[in-house]
Amino acid sequence: MASDVFVLLKTYNNSTKVDLTHDLSAQRAAVDRVLSAFRSICGPDGVSLGEAVREQHGKDESVHKCRPPDVVVFPRCVEEVSALAKVCHDHNLPIIPFGTGTGLEGGVGAVKGGVCFSLRNMDQVLDLHPEDFDVTVEPGVTRKALNAYLRDTGLWFPVDPGADASLCGMAATSASGTNAVRYGTMRENTLNLEVVLSDGRIIHTAGKGRRPRKTSAGYNLTNLFVGSEGTLGIITKTTLRLYGIPEAMVSAVCSFPSIQAAVDSTVQILQAGVPIARIGEEEREKNRYRYLTAYSTDVCVPLSRLPQIIVETKEDLLESRLTGPIAGHVGDGNFHCLMVVDPNDPDEQHRVHLFAERLARRALAMGGTCTGEHGVGLGKRVLLQEEVGPLAIQVMQGLKETLDPKNLMNPGKILLQGDP
Amino acid sequence: MASDVFVLLKTYNNSTKVDLTHDLSAQRAAVDRVLSAFRSICGPDGVSLGEAVREQHGKDESVHKCRPPDVVVFPRCVEEVSALAKVCHDHNLPIIPFGTGTGLEGGVGAVKGGVCFSLRNMDQVLDLHPEDFDVTVEPGVTRKALNAYLRDTGLWFPVDPGADASLCGMAATSASGTNAVRYGTMRENTLNLEVVLSDGRIIHTAGKGRRPRKTSAGYNLTNLFVGSEGTLGIITKTTLRLYGIPEAMVSAVCSFPSIQAAVDSTVQILQAGVPIARIGEEEREKNRYRYLTAYSTDVCVPLSRLPQIIVETKEDLLESRLTGPIAGHVGDGNFHCLMVVDPNDPDEQHRVHLFAERLARRALAMGGTCTGEHGVGLGKRVLLQEEVGPLAIQVMQGLKETLDPKNLMNPGKILLQGDP
Repeated sequence: MASDVFVLLKTYNNSTKVDLTHDLSAQRAAVDRVLSAFRSICGPDGVSLGEAVREQHGKDESVHKCRPPDVVVFPRCVEEVSALAKVCHDHNLPIIPFGTGTGLEGGVGAVKGGVCFSLRNMDQVLDLHPEDFDVTVEPGVTRKALNAYLRDTGLWFPVDPGADASLCGMAATSASGTNAVRYGTMRENTLNLEVVLSDGRIIHTAGKGRRPRKTSAGYNLTNLFVGSEGTLGIITKTTLRLYGIPEAMVSAVCSFPSIQAAVDSTVQILQAGVPIARIGEEEREKNRYRYLTAYSTDVCVPLSRLPQIIVETKEDLLESRLTGPIAGHVGDGNFHCLMVVDPNDPDEQHRVHLFAERLARRALAMGGTCTGEHGVGLGKRVLLQEEVGPLAIQVMQGLKETLDPKNLMNPGKILLQGDP
Repeated sequence: MASDVFVLLKTYNNSTKVDLTHDLSAQRAAVDRVLSAFRSICGPDGVSLGEAVREQHGKDESVHKCRPPDVVVFPRCVEEVSALAKVCHDHNLPIIPFGTGTGLEGGVGAVKGGVCFSLRNMDQVLDLHPEDFDVTVEPGVTRKALNAYLRDTGLWFPVDPGADASLCGMAATSASGTNAVRYGTMRENTLNLEVVLSDGRIIHTAGKGRRPRKTSAGYNLTNLFVGSEGTLGIITKTTLRLYGIPEAMVSAVCSFPSIQAAVDSTVQILQAGVPIARIGEEEREKNRYRYLTAYSTDVCVPLSRLPQIIVETKEDLLESRLTGPIAGHVGDGNFHCLMVVDPNDPDEQHRVHLFAERLARRALAMGGTCTGEHGVGLGKRVLLQEEVGPLAIQVMQGLKETLDPKNLMNPGKILLQGDP
């Protein structure tokens, strides 16, 4: 079953329609004017206008259509990122950070055109401190690359969203995954960030080179940038907590007579204080295909509401004539409907859209969130407004204006402000 | 030894000098004008001008001298807090939130006079959801009161800074304590906050009534307010994670030939993945007196730097002719020197001040922080600048201006901006 789904979904992804029609001739002219500056910063090979490269950088693994940038740059160090950002800032060009393109909410689409900063060439693991359980990585380092690097140290980085995402990208989207019950999400595991702001200035959220395991020194800038989805700055270094690899890891498969019984057991296990990494999955190291689906819902509700929302969601799937197996991390109330959609069936796509909105509002009505770990991106901006309310949105917009007054950083994501 | 120190320190605290000299006659006149409005909002008994009450609300448990507010108000609900804040905002009166006064960095001192909001009358435990491991509390609920309330549920709230602080105050100062190695700090355990902004508007950082165990919905406003020390708003409700009380809890006392050996053992234990609550203390449920000391340092460094900084600190104590037993949470690199100071010896006080600054800068030079869990308050504002650098300070000031453009919320704390 898993491999069938996988193939179907990759087919769908490959056939995603590309939108190259946005008319931004003035911006294109500005891009033309800065190309020589870009090339002098990161070399002739570090700037690409090719259509294939631009298309590749205009979409992630979601159903959101490709929105290619006007140009893709490939900086090799933070100084180049900073210099490129200064040029963009001077010419009012949007900046879109790009890690591995494995996001699920359309976060890399260049909805206003502009300059994609592909960070894959910055791929060094820096400052590994095994005795302090921390490491600093550049944005081209993926989760699997880091764990391969750590293989002989007895340490690992456990946050696992499924895809082999870049760790700085995972910080940008506040990723988590099924190990979050024991190890937390990127929010709990990011000690410090180096970020290039929209005007090219370089900030270290906890101070340059700092890596205490806890701090109460001033406002928590680290967790302001974690989850900001590239809208506040470009993350160029992330300092992460590491963990000892557990000496014993036990998997158990349990069958339950009902969803209620499964959730009750989970609650009892958590209450007993048993150290749990992930609960309720079919098997360890499987099910990865779900993160590659064309569309995956992502609601998260208080634990006790899981049975009700899952029952209602199954009924809704049937009534909507949709296929959507449910995979949950019962331990934290987050679950995904893996929507399998025929790309040639606009009616089905519409039904999926309506179904996903109903599901999100069902979660909101239960005190939950429309996104447990995938982020807001393009598709959940209206739902975010419903979730947090107008004042919280206004505060978020104020924070955005403070850090990015020209609205150049990944415009059109998270907030509707400035949306074309 | 513990009780001797305790007595000595309480004596010192009681003799803290009171500064009633600040000349703010215009502000006093403004206070006089709004008293009737205050009384109509929270009743005649909810407003106090008495000198003893004002003095009691002008200091915490630190060495910082008493800075009494012009008036103390005792709101009974969030609507009253909001109405009082609106009056203050209209009349440009500083607002200082007050929980239990157990802070250690002078956070409640009314350095610019103004209105102290004592929140002790808002003491309800709201919305306990044992099946979801969460609870919402008002700001008058202390840590011990909550755990007494939870006694029959099998659940507890493990964050334990020593003092019986209010939980909303603990959120405001990003408190933690010795259980942080296993359970995290207030940063990891706060799911949602209700906050009254300086203009009286009421914000719910994760959306009203929401309590998912994780979310990636927009900017992390919850963790912007956690640790903001009353400078961004008044926390009027906190939704907290709860935990099952561990079935087995084991304490061990180990003697080590050297500090290096103790730290090495700690690293090995953490690497083995043994669930650890706290490490390196003399005994469980003792040592509480250290949080009641007149002055406690609070640096936190990467684990491997602990032996060096402790050796250097012991030498410095000897050379400075100071008494300061060291109590550490070796598991997270945070330790305290419990400075025992003769209040009648200004030379000794000066030596303590210089010693504490040297210690903080030693921690900064090792990649650490000047404050692991006590916060910045009044005394570490210059150190914070050194720790995070000018751009991070500028961003913090921008955030402050966004949320509190009139600089009315607990002015003069964390940031030097607007300091008289």
